[in-house]
Amino acid sequence: MKITAAEIYSLLEKIRSKAPVVHNITNYVVMNNTANALLAIGASPVMAHAGEEMEEMVGIAQALVINIGTLSEKWISSMFDAMHHAARKNIPVILDPVGAGATSLRTRTARELIARNPPAIIRGNASEIMALADDKTKTKGVDSAASADKAIAIAQKISATYKCVVCVSGATDYIVEEKKIARVGNGHPLMTRVTGLGCTASALCGAFAAVEKSFFAATAGAMAVMGIAGEMAAGKAKGPGSLQMHFLDNLYRLSADDIKQRLKMEE
Amino acid sequence: MKITAAEIYSLLEKIRSKAPVVHNITNYVVMNNTANALLAIGASPVMAHAGEEMEEMVGIAQALVINIGTLSEKWISSMFDAMHHAARKNIPVILDPVGAGATSLRTRTARELIARNPPAIIRGNASEIMALADDKTKTKGVDSAASADKAIAIAQKISATYKCVVCVSGATDYIVEEKKIARVGNGHPLMTRVTGLGCTASALCGAFAAVEKSFFAATAGAMAVMGIAGEMAAGKAKGPGSLQMHFLDNLYRLSADDIKQRLKMEE
Amino acid sequence: MKITAAEIYSLLEKIRSKAPVVHNITNYVVMNNTANALLAIGASPVMAHAGEEMEEMVGIAQALVINIGTLSEKWISSMFDAMHHAARKNIPVILDPVGAGATSLRTRTARELIARNPPAIIRGNASEIMALADDKTKTKGVDSAASADKAIAIAQKISATYKCVVCVSGATDYIVEEKKIARVGNGHPLMTRVTGLGCTASALCGAFAAVEKSFFAATAGAMAVMGIAGEMAAGKAKGPGSLQMHFLDNLYRLSADDIKQRLKMEE
Repeated sequence: MKITAAEIYSLLEKIRSKAPVVHNITNYVVMNNTANALLAIGASPVMAHAGEEMEEMVGIAQALVINIGTLSEKWISSMFDAMHHAARKNIPVILDPVGAGATSLRTRTARELIARNPPAIIRGNASEIMALADDKTKTKGVDSAASADKAIAIAQKISATYKCVVCVSGATDYIVEEKKIARVGNGHPLMTRVTGLGCTASALCGAFAAVEKSFFAATAGAMAVMGIAGEMAAGKAKGPGSLQMHFLDNLYRLSADDIKQRLKMEE
Repeated sequence: MKITAAEIYSLLEKIRSKAPVVHNITNYVVMNNTANALLAIGASPVMAHAGEEMEEMVGIAQALVINIGTLSEKWISSMFDAMHHAARKNIPVILDPVGAGATSLRTRTARELIARNPPAIIRGNASEIMALADDKTKTKGVDSAASADKAIAIAQKISATYKCVVCVSGATDYIVEEKKIARVGNGHPLMTRVTGLGCTASALCGAFAAVEKSFFAATAGAMAVMGIAGEMAAGKAKGPGSLQMHFLDNLYRLSADDIKQRLKMEE
Repeated sequence: MKITAAEIYSLLEKIRSKAPVVHNITNYVVMNNTANALLAIGASPVMAHAGEEMEEMVGIAQALVINIGTLSEKWISSMFDAMHHAARKNIPVILDPVGAGATSLRTRTARELIARNPPAIIRGNASEIMALADDKTKTKGVDSAASADKAIAIAQKISATYKCVVCVSGATDYIVEEKKIARVGNGHPLMTRVTGLGCTASALCGAFAAVEKSFFAATAGAMAVMGIAGEMAAGKAKGPGSLQMHFLDNLYRLSADDIKQRLKMEE
């Protein structure tokens, strides 16, 4: 299968017309801009973390996004609950292992969440993905420093073990499903100066997975749309403040032509 | 009583000159833009949720805004405490029942908060207001899908029972106090693509209720100012990102003329 | 020692080239714009509050910023832990006593945090600094109303007692280290209409303290950069919404010339 600009745009149109509910248990830092990105793309974000409402809230969602950026005991427990209910109801789960490798709490939590109820999609930077399989990697903060090649090999292993799609994001985004790899070359370095655009990418994977059963295509589409909206924003921005604003505007306005003219995808 | 543009502007001037302290216990997603909206309009926002400081914090506030958007056990307990102290000190309370109807935790919490210490103002979308009285309604996420007429009837019933103002917000905002209804037609559809502008509306109700004893007039004024600043922002915006920015700028700069020329209010 | 524009710019260059990890335990309201300011200036922000990862997270940081804006029991416990580990590892700590004086929980917590493990830098408005030493002051919300002179005297006393730098921020920022005082006159009144720019200032102190061992020079540099980026933003802004955006853009782009032409520092 070849993922084309037209197919990506048709997924975007599906999100805009169906407005799928995407339930997020995410970190405090990015809740606002994640919700805004989901609204801008046409989805219906919900943020909820109370154990008492996990089953019901997951029940009205078409996708669940779990992001471990600011952990604490009760939130971890709700993440396990939510992923359990999503598994039972066959709702796709996207896991963003923010800061895995930086502390053992994060590494351990990410690994256990994956092992207990394997997600449909895991998206992280190279360090984070490597930390899911390898105790020797140390993340510097939440940024990526590790080499892409090693991360891809680990992503393939994780994908094979858990039957999930793994996205290693960075200057080039690698979408891995067992032996299959798609490369998305869109995006702009200034995006790394805005907090939580990685988290936003994971949330967009949720919106795409809500309308597309091939999670490989959904992830590739989400990363392409993310990168294209971001590079268009960077073209107009004078810094990270205006980039965030233009990014949301572009997500909202993104056209079939924007995707067609800019898509850099290789399979 | 007829609420005029001049009266609304005089309330706005009062907020700007008195800078009332508005204490918010609100959800994580919108804390930042809610605080920014209150600052932009001239109020002094405080966010605090620790049980240990509830009585003192409520004591320095001129209004209390309770928003159930991201609940958990301790926060619910602080909401009850804060509303109790506000009732004793005669500080107006605005309740925003975010997502009531979506989960039983939210529906039950909203109903109990209202019954225990009836607020001055309740503001929600049609689904949320209906969920306060009717077990058969199901909210899709936190957006409104229910019919306005049914919601108004329920708002009237709630208003009569609890002696409070109920605002059913949407394309038209209905401000209900027993048999009295005001309709505000300001606003713009793009506002629904920015997270938490409903929560912002509730916070602005707090700022207005801090300076105006008729909570009906305060709510009508807040919803009008919200809608006018929003539609002016939408006129300049290229999407939801720039709408949020222009909205805050407009709240800060809103003039008597802006209100006079744009106000769409019917009683 | 005289702090010059060239020296401040060289600190800024150090931040940009070294990208120091700044660990923040801060309030929910400002997490997003604090992280964005740190990224815009070139630092690597981390937000983490779980007790289980405090020691490890502090261990990878070059500065720790503690902000008591939205307290609760577990967070307070993590703040004590984090400051303990930072003291042992000789990592500079910046404390922002948000709302000290407004409630006894805040006043007591700020005082105890300082007494247990004296920070390198304390930054607050006049009311907050005065509340650290004086039970008779009452803060109105989280804004400053107290007189600068009295606050400076108290800052000098705190500095002498705890061997730390104290910054009393306001229209003029006073950086105090025992008998030494620097005054920064940069900034713009519109900055007070954006939530959390005080918190952002504290976070920037963290970035500067991560690369400069004189915490007096680091604080003066941070406050100058803050004020200059803010006044440049105010020159372009139409209100607080666009000020926040331009501020981040300016932090990112700030040049040696910008600092040289605008710096208003007296020692």
